[in-house]
Amino acid sequence: MSDDRVIICQPLTAEAFAPFGDVLDVTGTPDKMINAGLCGRYHDRAHLDFGVEGRAGISLFDAEPRRLPYDLDLLERHPEGSQAFLPMMEHPFLVCVAEAADARPLAFLTATGQGINFHRGTWHGVLTPLAAPGRFAVIDRIGPGANLEEAICDPPWRIVSS
Amino acid sequence: MSDDRVIICQPLTAEAFAPFGDVLDVTGTPDKMINAGLCGRYHDRAHLDFGVEGRAGISLFDAEPRRLPYDLDLLERHPEGSQAFLPMMEHPFLVCVAEAADARPLAFLTATGQGINFHRGTWHGVLTPLAAPGRFAVIDRIGPGANLEEAICDPPWRIVSS
Repeated sequence: MSDDRVIICQPLTAEAFAPFGDVLDVTGTPDKMINAGLCGRYHDRAHLDFGVEGRAGISLFDAEPRRLPYDLDLLERHPEGSQAFLPMMEHPFLVCVAEAADARPLAFLTATGQGINFHRGTWHGVLTPLAAPGRFAVIDRIGPGANLEEAICDPPWRIVSS
Repeated sequence: MSDDRVIICQPLTAEAFAPFGDVLDVTGTPDKMINAGLCGRYHDRAHLDFGVEGRAGISLFDAEPRRLPYDLDLLERHPEGSQAFLPMMEHPFLVCVAEAADARPLAFLTATGQGINFHRGTWHGVLTPLAAPGRFAVIDRIGPGANLEEAICDPPWRIVSS
């Protein structure tokens, strides 16, 4: 594989991820303390968009763990809706995104406790946990019509940790 | 505390929890295999209901862990919308529900990897993780108007493990 297809993971931050979606975590000050001060609420942190004909649904994904280096050979996007991934475990996972199907992707490594929400139409790699269990709550669009576009990466991009 | 105020936790099952809400987990066969067979999708598992004026939002809750025995002194409900709790950690948590504000509650202990969705209007206790981090993704109603009713349990119910 040629060096220019190698992509080094970067830590996931709200700033770096902003063009692609929202980082969902409990860093910073809660928007509200509830339950007699025993619970912090970080309120309404995702830009959900399911279009006129769609609605929100909660699905669960159980994905096979991958490992780095990881060959990214497929990007996909959902033109009709946003898609959020909330890990139901305490391991980082890999998030690959791109500004366009033929653009150079970026690879983010989450910290424990971070979820993400891809904005509607964001090109991204498939769900790639890096440890078992690869279990996620997914909040995405339920509705009529096709909501998946795919683009093959040929040759693949090689995602490395450093 | 009198014995008739003592409630023994039961394991969370979809059947026992059905009058109150949905159990969200990856048991059983996925509805669909995606990502070249590497990911199971358990599709649209929660009965979301945010009314005419509400919409879905994703918030994060960071709650102080409790321990058993736990004194349940407050029930609450959200008349305008359902509320789902997806643990972002691998520990069980306690789920208390009641058919009415003055009915005898039930106490469920989740298994690792189980989330729940309270149906609109279900009386329930506040979020009670039993280990740190008490971190949850919460999918509930964003919208105008009051959406909280509370009922004091006096004397409290004592929730015990067995």
